[in-house]
Amino acid sequence: MPSSQQSAQPSAPAGRAPAPASVDGANPATGAALDLSQDVTTLTAAICDIESVSHDEARLADAIEAALRPLEHLEVTRDGNTVVARTSLGRAERIVLAGHIDTVPLTTVPNLPTRNVNGELWGRGTVDMKGGVAVMLRVAAELTEPTRDLTFLFYECEEIEATYNGLARIAETAPQLLEGDFAVLLEPTNGGIEGGCKGTLRVEIVTQGIAAHSARPWKGHNAIHDAAAVLSRLTAYEAETVTIDGLDYHEALQAVGIAGGIAGNVVPDSCTVTVNYRYAPDKNTEEAFAHVRQVFDGFDVSLTDAADGARPGLQLPAARAFIDALGVPVNPKEGWTDVARFSALGIPAVNFGPGDPNLAHMDDERCPVEQYASAEAALMRWLA
Amino acid sequence: MPSSQQSAQPSAPAGRAPAPASVDGANPATGAALDLSQDVTTLTAAICDIESVSHDEARLADAIEAALRPLEHLEVTRDGNTVVARTSLGRAERIVLAGHIDTVPLTTVPNLPTRNVNGELWGRGTVDMKGGVAVMLRVAAELTEPTRDLTFLFYECEEIEATYNGLARIAETAPQLLEGDFAVLLEPTNGGIEGGCKGTLRVEIVTQGIAAHSARPWKGHNAIHDAAAVLSRLTAYEAETVTIDGLDYHEALQAVGIAGGIAGNVVPDSCTVTVNYRYAPDKNTEEAFAHVRQVFDGFDVSLTDAADGARPGLQLPAARAFIDALGVPVNPKEGWTDVARFSALGIPAVNFGPGDPNLAHMDDERCPVEQYASAEAALMRWLA
Repeated sequence: MPSSQQSAQPSAPAGRAPAPASVDGANPATGAALDLSQDVTTLTAAICDIESVSHDEARLADAIEAALRPLEHLEVTRDGNTVVARTSLGRAERIVLAGHIDTVPLTTVPNLPTRNVNGELWGRGTVDMKGGVAVMLRVAAELTEPTRDLTFLFYECEEIEATYNGLARIAETAPQLLEGDFAVLLEPTNGGIEGGCKGTLRVEIVTQGIAAHSARPWKGHNAIHDAAAVLSRLTAYEAETVTIDGLDYHEALQAVGIAGGIAGNVVPDSCTVTVNYRYAPDKNTEEAFAHVRQVFDGFDVSLTDAADGARPGLQLPAARAFIDALGVPVNPKEGWTDVARFSALGIPAVNFGPGDPNLAHMDDERCPVEQYASAEAALMRWLA
Repeated sequence: MPSSQQSAQPSAPAGRAPAPASVDGANPATGAALDLSQDVTTLTAAICDIESVSHDEARLADAIEAALRPLEHLEVTRDGNTVVARTSLGRAERIVLAGHIDTVPLTTVPNLPTRNVNGELWGRGTVDMKGGVAVMLRVAAELTEPTRDLTFLFYECEEIEATYNGLARIAETAPQLLEGDFAVLLEPTNGGIEGGCKGTLRVEIVTQGIAAHSARPWKGHNAIHDAAAVLSRLTAYEAETVTIDGLDYHEALQAVGIAGGIAGNVVPDSCTVTVNYRYAPDKNTEEAFAHVRQVFDGFDVSLTDAADGARPGLQLPAARAFIDALGVPVNPKEGWTDVARFSALGIPAVNFGPGDPNLAHMDDERCPVEQYASAEAALMRWLA
């Protein structure tokens, strides 16, 4: 929704508290301002309090653009609701710091504005991932002379279908804006570094039967019964653990859906098992699909979607320097993330950001505020 | 829909042919008349041409009531759209002839009015079961002095949920109207006799898991994988054949539905397998459910619905006399039918009627007209 429409019809549900004072000087009817000189926790709260559910990021993108435009060491580009800011200091290396600015929807009783309770900031976005966005803005404002050239990417629509993803769009339409030697995605990692990510593909395995009245099943053939063998192969399957750059990626092959049946008195003529394979980043889609076909040899297996993972690339000098500077634990990323998009561009990437990923999207989303400060401090150590 | 409303708004789709001449003297706007002196094929066509999809039987019930009221040897009772007609001749035995007057909906291009093509009558109801209804009306009109007292039951809403079934309602509210020594349900049996029927019950077997991200399945537990054991027991199950009164009832235990899954990236926390057990009429629901629980011992099994079957009762004198008089093949009824409702009232019952049951409900529903005549002749042989 364009911000002009949003301004005309502010959508404040009855009973919602007014916008908090931390949005300094903001006029909710015309847009919000962000003061990048504030401490990172206050800035995180201010960013969270500008609601930006996917497809509705215009007001936050406006605020980020407005805060960065005055900074003379940055060249700012706006594309849709995605904002890119870059230094051009002629450094030997370029680092990309990236974070999405959208969130999943608020809870039924809206979990905004943010509340600071006993040192934890509560509310939508406090984990996924407006703390990371605040850290990026702090680094962008403070480090006018970073040791490496920096690209800051604030992008839209990460939480929904990939077709709307701002990072994917820029990678397609203006890849030069994403050039770099190494990328850090500030998704929540509980303060550690998570390297690479597993790939993911889904297949549908369909068994075909012949419909008949269930009182006379010998006139048909039961497709659900045939799915017994599909499920048995799944339960017997032993997933591999693959070690890459010292990180252990645990593969997984799981049924995520099953559906069959016509009516309560009919022998079903079809049953579909949907299987999700999460595979280590030593494989591409083709190899992973070949493996799944082998597991379900003899069945009708069709690929419905796939996204390759990303190797951690931790042996690369830029990654080593990052890990050494931060001195925090390094773990594999089990889930698929947008680091794979950087990997596809040939840019090694890791996840590093404040917040416990297990609390992302949850009703009780919250983050200890010291994680914001320590993430900011870690990046400053590395880049100052 | 009450017939007065239907008369005010005749629902004749564009392109439908006008009501055929065989509805002798009928005025579609005010009701149709039935001439019971016509041959049974002409009468069947006339009855089919009075549309009577379930819940919309008023016009046909009106016509049946109007045709029977003038017959002095019958006492006619109307209850909703169900019509009962009885002789009271003080005979030693009473026979109930029963048939439902509703049909399933017409085909998209309406399969009415009926067409007689090369000796087959085509159209909705020609098999299920207006041929049987016509035979009943012919017997009711012709046999003013039957050898046994007769009860004719023309009932509504057999093709839909049991809660609307006219036979079930009369059995509940006026069981004395259904009293008898033996019942014949004129459902299509292709001219043979089908004795008794199997019972049916459905259970839901639910496996419980723990939801988790499918990239980290070790944090959850996959309920669909647990359903593998449920399906394996089904595929390993060997159904019994039970012989009663010389008829072989083939039991069956079939999955008729399966559903599980939350999203393409979530380990599912629940999977439900719906299983239909068709059991021989030597068992009641309780015994049948106990058997199913034993088959799925260790799983969460809940009964969702059940209907006992009916023993054929072919050893009873009234049944033997019927079989001897007709001289047609006797087979078990594998599916559940309303004969079970008579069985529950203590009245042995069989199915006997014109039409191939495999063509019931089909787009190409049709019946060789000689089956109407031979069914009528068989009942006349027995009862005259």
